[in-house]
Amino acid sequence: MSALVVPAREVPAWADDCEVLVVGLGAAGAAAALEAAAAGADVLALERAGAGGGTSALSGGVLYLGGGTPLQKECGFDDSPEEMFKYLMASCGPRPDEAKIRRYCEGSVDHYHWLVAQGVPFKPVFYPHYSGEPPTDDGLVYSGTEDAWPYDRVAKPAPRGHVPQIPGQAGGLLMQKLLGALAASRARVRSDARCVALVRGGEGRIEGVRVRSGGRDEAIRARRGVVLCTGGFVNDKPMLRLHAPLLARCKFRVGAEGDDGSGIRLGIAAGGMPLNLSMGSISLPVTPPKAILKGVLVNGQGQRFVNEDAYMGRLGECALLHQEGRAFWILDDATFVRPDVPRPVAAVGETPAELERELGLPEGSLEATLGLYNRHAARGEDPLFHKKAKWLTPLERPPFGALDCTVDGSLYAAFTLGGLRTSEDGAVLSASGDPIPGLFAAGRATACLAAPGYASGLSLGDGTFFGRRAGRKASGLSKAS
Amino acid sequence: MSALVVPAREVPAWADDCEVLVVGLGAAGAAAALEAAAAGADVLALERAGAGGGTSALSGGVLYLGGGTPLQKECGFDDSPEEMFKYLMASCGPRPDEAKIRRYCEGSVDHYHWLVAQGVPFKPVFYPHYSGEPPTDDGLVYSGTEDAWPYDRVAKPAPRGHVPQIPGQAGGLLMQKLLGALAASRARVRSDARCVALVRGGEGRIEGVRVRSGGRDEAIRARRGVVLCTGGFVNDKPMLRLHAPLLARCKFRVGAEGDDGSGIRLGIAAGGMPLNLSMGSISLPVTPPKAILKGVLVNGQGQRFVNEDAYMGRLGECALLHQEGRAFWILDDATFVRPDVPRPVAAVGETPAELERELGLPEGSLEATLGLYNRHAARGEDPLFHKKAKWLTPLERPPFGALDCTVDGSLYAAFTLGGLRTSEDGAVLSASGDPIPGLFAAGRATACLAAPGYASGLSLGDGTFFGRRAGRKASGLSKAS
Repeated sequence: MSALVVPAREVPAWADDCEVLVVGLGAAGAAAALEAAAAGADVLALERAGAGGGTSALSGGVLYLGGGTPLQKECGFDDSPEEMFKYLMASCGPRPDEAKIRRYCEGSVDHYHWLVAQGVPFKPVFYPHYSGEPPTDDGLVYSGTEDAWPYDRVAKPAPRGHVPQIPGQAGGLLMQKLLGALAASRARVRSDARCVALVRGGEGRIEGVRVRSGGRDEAIRARRGVVLCTGGFVNDKPMLRLHAPLLARCKFRVGAEGDDGSGIRLGIAAGGMPLNLSMGSISLPVTPPKAILKGVLVNGQGQRFVNEDAYMGRLGECALLHQEGRAFWILDDATFVRPDVPRPVAAVGETPAELERELGLPEGSLEATLGLYNRHAARGEDPLFHKKAKWLTPLERPPFGALDCTVDGSLYAAFTLGGLRTSEDGAVLSASGDPIPGLFAAGRATACLAAPGYASGLSLGDGTFFGRRAGRKASGLSKAS
Repeated sequence: MSALVVPAREVPAWADDCEVLVVGLGAAGAAAALEAAAAGADVLALERAGAGGGTSALSGGVLYLGGGTPLQKECGFDDSPEEMFKYLMASCGPRPDEAKIRRYCEGSVDHYHWLVAQGVPFKPVFYPHYSGEPPTDDGLVYSGTEDAWPYDRVAKPAPRGHVPQIPGQAGGLLMQKLLGALAASRARVRSDARCVALVRGGEGRIEGVRVRSGGRDEAIRARRGVVLCTGGFVNDKPMLRLHAPLLARCKFRVGAEGDDGSGIRLGIAAGGMPLNLSMGSISLPVTPPKAILKGVLVNGQGQRFVNEDAYMGRLGECALLHQEGRAFWILDDATFVRPDVPRPVAAVGETPAELERELGLPEGSLEATLGLYNRHAARGEDPLFHKKAKWLTPLERPPFGALDCTVDGSLYAAFTLGGLRTSEDGAVLSASGDPIPGLFAAGRATACLAAPGYASGLSLGDGTFFGRRAGRKASGLSKAS
């Protein structure tokens, strides 16, 4: 047996004691601790760093919420739990977790109110110029492919990226508010305390943890449950290379130092079943400005492979998972614009034929692709990938240029989406599908709703939503709704 | 704790006792039992069915061996461990297990001799008309993409599919010989005995198993080790849908009833780390006859996406994993031939334009693809995907036809490649990468060398090769070489 799980009888004494022990104080851990405390439990939250925040505090702060939140309504958008459900069911990979997604959509408006009640402010202004984190303090953005093919045919589009009101530091503000609420609660917080093992009782129940703090180990008892909220594993190179080797190729790996998979390993050592460990969020940002969407994205055979107006997460997935990370963004002189995120110019040419030669693409390939694209674009059509008509214009004015969108030569941003499999109530599930008694998890230590098909805000969204459920369930004092 | 792992103190008495207990008697289990017995251990092998054989006995019997086996030499092919290593490192997915692959290649000639010593016959005749299982009793075939792009540029091609000498029943013959050798050994075999739980001692060591047999449960002690050789999980629908949902779409799922993931779940419950659970072997057979390779394979946008002369496993992977299972095989009147494996004609047309309309492909897409392909083919070139010159001929004589190669409308054959992560010696590894004391595994209960990138014969090949190593290591009586 790995030392990640210690038999209770090897624990000479408990140095501390609580009812619900939360491991990791990012957004998921804060939500779990807050809700367990609200349920009346004696809560202790451990953070291995000097203070809570984790990757959540460094993030763009987008929360994927919808179903008709007050913010959506104030910004003039109609949404319903059913449309949100249809979008997530269509976009969250080949096997979306229907029960969890339904729960998430039906509870989203309530969850928005809970966030506001913790002091998280949202400015009721929609930011239209970019999808993802706005540079302003505006509160609502598109953060997925709701408004483009194929999902615009599946569900009525609505923006669901809810962003706390502060320019560029929304994740920090979110965590400031959640940790502030936690400080005002009855929950105790202990920092510089790293959970190194789970303690398992004779009957198989997780009864506590072993903690390393100030150079020594001690055991802390959790009478009702341990909630692992330790984040993903994008910063553990061996684990990343083993399970998600394609993500390891991305230049920008998104995550705080603590995203080293520690809690995922603890859960697996305790018999937890991991899910979707190979999956990740893979972003290929090309906008702003949106005018760049008039270009076409081609692979190493000079072929298009996605509607260019899909969300940057979908562009990145399609390019890395299905095109081996070989991709070029083609523009002509009339459409040329440099993206705000710097992307090297890979080649220029007076004709498509010259450009394809410079790029090392097969002879005639880019020419054939542009010929077909231009013919359709002149009619305002894109029968291959259904890019929206406003971005369709023939690319025919020389010179032609290609921006490097290869994974090796340009910016891809990635983090992991795989983790422990949990129930709707946050219980860590074993290989047989049964809960492991006393063990819960939330956030990126667990498998994301999307795998693949990530929309920005799903991590803070599912982490806080299912973190609250896990905290409540672990408290055992109040029924999870 | 799941009931898949039982504390030793809950076992009132051991009903039986051995040193090495092998669970499951397919090829991996037979190899493990034979080698443990040869090392001098007291071996007991359990089989849940009425007799051993499992999926191995039903299979085509191809073993992926090479590096210069006597069979390869007698058939006139040069091969070396280094060329075999280069091929497998290039083809076995984005993170091949270098240490295991090196071990496998360097030990392959020895392993061939071992198989022959167990009585497995190989006829020294190369079968050239098909890649995969030959309809004859010939002994050597190509069973991967060694002889086509891109791998023919990476390693010197050699056929490595070694097939026991009997037409169409080579898997049955292989198992007949291995089980015969086992019957002649000191190992005991017990059938109709299903392992339902692992027994874990106080120190975390796996000390035995709980077995269900004839309607009652009993415990069997394994003083040195338990070796899980229980096969994959293609026949467990919940597990397949959860971890490998794309495989669940394939019409033909390859595996005996016992491929329900039971041993994988046991290993995970004991803290084992699963690897590559989403991966599978996905075959899209179109040959024989090989003349069909003069056609082109296009996706739902009418684009080519792979060299059509790649192995059927690569065709299936590319079509299902990267093209959403939408694929059509396009032929003209001069090249038309029906494949031996029936594939429905999806559409016919007097022109490419008519054919693309009939197929529902975007207007102009197939026309553009064929225009480019034909121009190159007329010169004997395929700069996009490098199909071999002998299969390159312009497709221009009407009528044109399309064979249905969609996953929903035609035959894809699939089985799982993910499973427990093991060391080179077959020890089941935990999330921390340490061996779980007393627990070993081999065959499709473990992660395959390929993920993806399957070549036929890797399962019987790695199962018997690493099965032997696991049996030897579990016996603890002889150093694994």
